[in-house]
Amino acid sequence: MNFLLLDSADFLAPDRAVITGRRLRQLIDTIRAEPGKLCKAGVRGGDLGSAEVVSIDAAAAELRFIPERRPPPPLPLILVAALPRPQTFDKVLHVTAAMGVKRIFFINSFKVEKSYWQASRLAPEAVEAELALAMEQCGDTIFPEIEFRPRFRPFVEDELPELLRNRRGFYGNPAAPFPVPHGAVTAEKPAVLAVGPEGGFTDYENSRLEAAGMTGISLGCRVLRTEFAVAALLARLGM
Amino acid sequence: MNFLLLDSADFLAPDRAVITGRRLRQLIDTIRAEPGKLCKAGVRGGDLGSAEVVSIDAAAAELRFIPERRPPPPLPLILVAALPRPQTFDKVLHVTAAMGVKRIFFINSFKVEKSYWQASRLAPEAVEAELALAMEQCGDTIFPEIEFRPRFRPFVEDELPELLRNRRGFYGNPAAPFPVPHGAVTAEKPAVLAVGPEGGFTDYENSRLEAAGMTGISLGCRVLRTEFAVAALLARLGM
Repeated sequence: MNFLLLDSADFLAPDRAVITGRRLRQLIDTIRAEPGKLCKAGVRGGDLGSAEVVSIDAAAAELRFIPERRPPPPLPLILVAALPRPQTFDKVLHVTAAMGVKRIFFINSFKVEKSYWQASRLAPEAVEAELALAMEQCGDTIFPEIEFRPRFRPFVEDELPELLRNRRGFYGNPAAPFPVPHGAVTAEKPAVLAVGPEGGFTDYENSRLEAAGMTGISLGCRVLRTEFAVAALLARLGM
Repeated sequence: MNFLLLDSADFLAPDRAVITGRRLRQLIDTIRAEPGKLCKAGVRGGDLGSAEVVSIDAAAAELRFIPERRPPPPLPLILVAALPRPQTFDKVLHVTAAMGVKRIFFINSFKVEKSYWQASRLAPEAVEAELALAMEQCGDTIFPEIEFRPRFRPFVEDELPELLRNRRGFYGNPAAPFPVPHGAVTAEKPAVLAVGPEGGFTDYENSRLEAAGMTGISLGCRVLRTEFAVAALLARLGM
């Protein structure tokens, strides 16, 4: 744990929070918490700062939270990802959230296996738990919104054009002649990035994405695991 | 399996190879191999191309290899990574190899736990197996060289300056004022990139890296898991 994530429900008073359970155990394991010790902390949806241990025992820790600064700026990019297999879903969710994306759509695609839509990891509480780990990892307090669209065409024809109204659109296409543009996404130039399933979008899907106004971009001829392709695309597009 | 990796030991004749074991099972599972079917293939250290199934049964497959092109160009960057914990070691090895790095040094650092050096995953056969998976994933035939340096100072003082003789040096330092330069590494401008352990290099280590001629670069204030930080750094530095 790099960072203790507090929730408004943890607070007894404006600067006093009590934690139990997983976060208490991590606090004990990682900083050998005792009264007076400080750790990095943040309040969900709010400021980053420090938490000072006021009292601690096996059941609970009372903390004094000292706000210090605003959370890091978001990456002004909406990710649209073909729903990955369940183990990969967690990794994609993690890295996308940790890199500062604040809105993620998981969509259907021809090569997405139907069973992926039934995975237990898509349940709200599982998504919430993975996002909390990502926020603790990267030191952010603003959770992304996660949306699922089990039908490709209505999303691409009805919703995507709206998202692209004030944003540039890119989609990963290994056959595209354009390399991923370095640093193309800034606060002034927000974007939507679509990433296909293993094996890529179909030609039909590529044509629908193009029709919606997206440009195919390629990371080169090497094929990366989905979670690393997402990390590489976000790192290269972002500033 | 995106790609079947053949070894010179598999060849009975210049264009005839026989495979058994893991690769045979994957061939059966992924392409429902039968005589006449083609799959993407490559020869370790050599060309990429296609393998046509000549005959196949439960014990072995005979393949005709048709060379088509040279492997993708390397990423002209030497990675120097503080040895990660064992599970992370495999992921860092995978993504670094899959992104085209051809020389990787794993070095000691103050925050590397001693036990990491005893991990079974560092054994040559374990490294070889992980690299083979990375090559199959990304579609390359040129394996990177992996070297271990269990002492920080002799490496940084004696070997690193040699590596930096014709290369620029960068090291990850979240406190550095310089963001990771987009597209800074090209065939004409090769580089060495050093990446610290979880928790970062110490101030002393940073000073030794600077003394060797390296410049600290930062991915920003978000802290990523090591394997994602490596993917992000390589993607942003590379062309």
